[in-house]
Amino acid sequence: MVAVLKADATREQIDSLTAWLEGRGLSVHLSKGATHTILGLIGDTSQIDTELLEGLEMVESVKRISEPFKNANRKFHPEDTVVDIGGLKIGGPHFQLIAGPCSVESQEQILAVAKSVRASGASILRGGAFKPRTSPYDFQGLRADGIELLLEAKKQTGMPIITEIMNANHLPMFERVDVIQVGARNMQNIELLKELGMARKPVLLKRGLANTLQELLMSAEYIMAGGNRDVILCERGIRTFETYSRNTLDLSAVPILRELTHLPVVVDPSHASGLARLVPPMAMAAAAAGAHGLMIEVHNDPVNALCDGAQSLTPEQFADMAEKVRRIRGVMSGDG
Amino acid sequence: MVAVLKADATREQIDSLTAWLEGRGLSVHLSKGATHTILGLIGDTSQIDTELLEGLEMVESVKRISEPFKNANRKFHPEDTVVDIGGLKIGGPHFQLIAGPCSVESQEQILAVAKSVRASGASILRGGAFKPRTSPYDFQGLRADGIELLLEAKKQTGMPIITEIMNANHLPMFERVDVIQVGARNMQNIELLKELGMARKPVLLKRGLANTLQELLMSAEYIMAGGNRDVILCERGIRTFETYSRNTLDLSAVPILRELTHLPVVVDPSHASGLARLVPPMAMAAAAAGAHGLMIEVHNDPVNALCDGAQSLTPEQFADMAEKVRRIRGVMSGDG
Amino acid sequence: MVAVLKADATREQIDSLTAWLEGRGLSVHLSKGATHTILGLIGDTSQIDTELLEGLEMVESVKRISEPFKNANRKFHPEDTVVDIGGLKIGGPHFQLIAGPCSVESQEQILAVAKSVRASGASILRGGAFKPRTSPYDFQGLRADGIELLLEAKKQTGMPIITEIMNANHLPMFERVDVIQVGARNMQNIELLKELGMARKPVLLKRGLANTLQELLMSAEYIMAGGNRDVILCERGIRTFETYSRNTLDLSAVPILRELTHLPVVVDPSHASGLARLVPPMAMAAAAAGAHGLMIEVHNDPVNALCDGAQSLTPEQFADMAEKVRRIRGVMSGDG
Amino acid sequence: MVAVLKADATREQIDSLTAWLEGRGLSVHLSKGATHTILGLIGDTSQIDTELLEGLEMVESVKRISEPFKNANRKFHPEDTVVDIGGLKIGGPHFQLIAGPCSVESQEQILAVAKSVRASGASILRGGAFKPRTSPYDFQGLRADGIELLLEAKKQTGMPIITEIMNANHLPMFERVDVIQVGARNMQNIELLKELGMARKPVLLKRGLANTLQELLMSAEYIMAGGNRDVILCERGIRTFETYSRNTLDLSAVPILRELTHLPVVVDPSHASGLARLVPPMAMAAAAAGAHGLMIEVHNDPVNALCDGAQSLTPEQFADMAEKVRRIRGVMSGDG
Repeated sequence: MVAVLKADATREQIDSLTAWLEGRGLSVHLSKGATHTILGLIGDTSQIDTELLEGLEMVESVKRISEPFKNANRKFHPEDTVVDIGGLKIGGPHFQLIAGPCSVESQEQILAVAKSVRASGASILRGGAFKPRTSPYDFQGLRADGIELLLEAKKQTGMPIITEIMNANHLPMFERVDVIQVGARNMQNIELLKELGMARKPVLLKRGLANTLQELLMSAEYIMAGGNRDVILCERGIRTFETYSRNTLDLSAVPILRELTHLPVVVDPSHASGLARLVPPMAMAAAAAGAHGLMIEVHNDPVNALCDGAQSLTPEQFADMAEKVRRIRGVMSGDG
Repeated sequence: MVAVLKADATREQIDSLTAWLEGRGLSVHLSKGATHTILGLIGDTSQIDTELLEGLEMVESVKRISEPFKNANRKFHPEDTVVDIGGLKIGGPHFQLIAGPCSVESQEQILAVAKSVRASGASILRGGAFKPRTSPYDFQGLRADGIELLLEAKKQTGMPIITEIMNANHLPMFERVDVIQVGARNMQNIELLKELGMARKPVLLKRGLANTLQELLMSAEYIMAGGNRDVILCERGIRTFETYSRNTLDLSAVPILRELTHLPVVVDPSHASGLARLVPPMAMAAAAAGAHGLMIEVHNDPVNALCDGAQSLTPEQFADMAEKVRRIRGVMSGDG
Repeated sequence: MVAVLKADATREQIDSLTAWLEGRGLSVHLSKGATHTILGLIGDTSQIDTELLEGLEMVESVKRISEPFKNANRKFHPEDTVVDIGGLKIGGPHFQLIAGPCSVESQEQILAVAKSVRASGASILRGGAFKPRTSPYDFQGLRADGIELLLEAKKQTGMPIITEIMNANHLPMFERVDVIQVGARNMQNIELLKELGMARKPVLLKRGLANTLQELLMSAEYIMAGGNRDVILCERGIRTFETYSRNTLDLSAVPILRELTHLPVVVDPSHASGLARLVPPMAMAAAAAGAHGLMIEVHNDPVNALCDGAQSLTPEQFADMAEKVRRIRGVMSGDG
Repeated sequence: MVAVLKADATREQIDSLTAWLEGRGLSVHLSKGATHTILGLIGDTSQIDTELLEGLEMVESVKRISEPFKNANRKFHPEDTVVDIGGLKIGGPHFQLIAGPCSVESQEQILAVAKSVRASGASILRGGAFKPRTSPYDFQGLRADGIELLLEAKKQTGMPIITEIMNANHLPMFERVDVIQVGARNMQNIELLKELGMARKPVLLKRGLANTLQELLMSAEYIMAGGNRDVILCERGIRTFETYSRNTLDLSAVPILRELTHLPVVVDPSHASGLARLVPPMAMAAAAAGAHGLMIEVHNDPVNALCDGAQSLTPEQFADMAEKVRRIRGVMSGDG
């Protein structure tokens, strides 16, 4: 960490700050220039609160050299983390296709979609039971009933299931769920992250709409600091000025996260764009960028489903996309 | 609501959609052009899910004409809402100065700050007990103990208190708190908003860092739909590309919110900028823009407080600012 | 185009507006609801200035149904445009690799890079002669001399060349340049676009850092309205809140632009990220997303070039990337 | 300037870099830690290209301590710059109201508006002759004729005039214009800025829609480096995610710019919001935040002007606003 002091910082102030920092176990290197004094802080600076340091009258600015995350940091854990999801592996060389409907609507629907996507190569079933909606007047999901329907689909198809949690009080309902998803709006719901840190179950953590990758990793750090190391990161689109698509998928997040952290990185192109026709090209691009998995919305009956999602693929579109993704992964691994 | 259909929408599709919309109580006006057909939907469209409608194959785009919020909408409640805070009024012609330290640290600290800001014109005491921090390694607040210290300060000074909640399970601890604050990171923590809708206590709802004003009003709507009508909105800075200040205060939010809603609008210039020297000019500007209140961080002992906030005013700076704000409000009301 | 009128619009106002619109050749359909009146405008609305219409007292909002661009619009020109660059084709099924150094520095440098990238599959040579820099104290390029060096490299290698223009007065210097590039900062330099509309030479138009795709297409429209139909669009990264990379490559721009327009779409992953190690994964992702070309920075002597770009690949890295891109394009076309 | 080197930087690399930096007149202080080495660079670092330094293999990151602008920097010129505009002063304690129509339309229009705003306290006349429009099909202004009409209004009212330039070739037409405006889209039109640096006339430089304040100051630096020191900065709204208003006025730009630079700072609330009813509160807020001037759109005949701007005030609204601004400035200066 480097702290730049103002030109008018007094000898006394500098000594006092140095003593305080040394008291926290850091060694302090001082470079004095004509207009500024620079303090180089060496040691474990993750426990130093940058904002508080910047608050000091004598400090002009502070710059971290080491990232403020530890458990999620590849520098300290160079090997890729491989997460086990009901016997399936994700991370490192292991890639998984997660697919299913936006919302669980009925037993017939979830079963039909599950069987269809499994036949095309999906290995994990997704489906929303608790739905975070911007408006209190929009459909909020089947809630507990939706989880029961997912569990029945898991029983009949053997696919592990993933679904979103919105309230730590609901954790008991998620006991037989394989992966708990934290949605973009809750990425910094600190109290929820802390509870999930005590769960013994993989967590798929979605990036918030306007959050940096470091903030995403700090939220992963909350979960990991609690003892739960099975965190899967998910890029699902960020808010930009573009209005054509709902959000903008940030695929550079894939190579950047793979550099910064050892955790698996999954991409959700369905929520990012909100438009089914953008999903296949962006799914292929995500695979080419090095994602460990894809999460895709698929519906089974677009003709009759008046209110099904603009962002869902038909089973046929999904099967075609899955095959192309498989071949692009072949190119990536040198077998293509 | 207006739905634009694609040129190739069939007669059958249009009839089927029209029937479905009429079944939901809307009347449908159809304008057929060479390249597009436009459906004008008249009636209560707040229960129509725009995204689902946009998902239909035949639909090119959908545009809301009426805002999707009702309880918070000035069109349906033209009179300003005035919220009662322990006997003090905020909203309409009533203005309040909220002040206090970023975090509650000790009984001496909170009492000293409370007495000092009360003497300079602040009427409501703020102080953080539960602190939402990006890093799990940063100070998380005194939590329950912090609330006790605030209650003691309330007892000794008579000032109503406001403090932030992060978990609906903590609600019992907030029983004697006068205003419950929802922080920017939790603006779309839907489950928390629903619980606060059942509380009988004013809620100060902060705008998320990258949220639109309509999204802020939809979050207020979650609280109001539960029966709690005492919602105070708070602009506290948005995320922009500017790096000089921590966030960018959006003062146009004040006249826009005052036009869209009847709820009181408060501005927090301290968190927005993160720099004490920007707080007085922005506080004055907020008053000139028509805010119903200001929320200002003040600390009492900047010299010895090694780790106090860069964004806090000294009591003297606060007193000077409060006097200028008072005079600007005089200009606004015609008494200046 | 749809105009939503306010509830209090008078009969007289509506008639006057309708007459004015009909006078501009539009037919007007009126739907009157309880709270709003909707005007559907059918006909050529590209000459209607939306902002001026929105400025009317009686108008609440205006929504375009047709895009405001015509020459660039795929609806009116369904066939892909194929641009000829010194005998090479780009657009439709034709893909080209553009490569070269950030700045032209010397005859040896540009020749060495040109030969090296040509051997690895690049077909067009790029190199900056005029450099738009944020600071007046940074290197501004070799200017006219840089163009001469590029022309000599073209002569020796046979590769067509592309380089950036910053001032319409410099056009005579670009006479033997094959493609004129307009940089992101000049995307809305209207006077320059108009001049290029009168040039008879392909233009590669880069998207501005914070511009929407529609704004990019409107800038293309300025060039095309002047008679120059050979416009190549280039996504080169947008400004977001992420700080790890310089900008954020928006690959969803590729399928969206391919849907909206018939013009070729090229991706520049080097400027977007500013980091060489992000270039290969993002280049492969861009190919998978359907780009018609890639523009890549390559330098020849990274060890001695103290001040060469963090974003440039070595010739070996470029050759490896080019081979993977070739194989991904095989997957896309069904030959992979 | 601080450069952080990677842990694996060799002794040889560090020596070579140090020698290169010392050759540029800087003194280099080295702090070696367990995981990083920090170089503190003392001296005139404005000529060091940060991006090039960051491009070096051994460098992890670079941080400027001194701002990269010199002529515009308050540290080197502590006194406020006061610009003379046809005998009127702006900057320091001097405040000016600039007003006029969006576009010059006719002699009657510009004269009527000029006389009306002068009577209400405006001292400088604005009006667009060259209009930068996103669409080539929108009105592009009266161009040279518009400047003639402005000059006639100047002659009849004695008001200095300000109007926008879009092309350096047009400079001869601006000979009798008092202040040349550079619009937001051209803020980084480097070639235009260089030409204006050689002009002997005040320049009002508008901030780009997505530019930082440092980028604005670097553009001012281009003009000042050419010898023209009469630069007036103008905040006119930035692009954010909010859709209610066209752009979002960033009033914190006022105190920040006043801290960073000695140049005058003007605010344009009309273009920022695009809505007349937001102009008066934001104009008052801008005055309270410390702006040296306001630039306001006013039209004279809203009833008959079918296509006049949604963002223009009537003369009556302007007069009322001007009076309130005058009184707020009284509060600021202690005379209120």
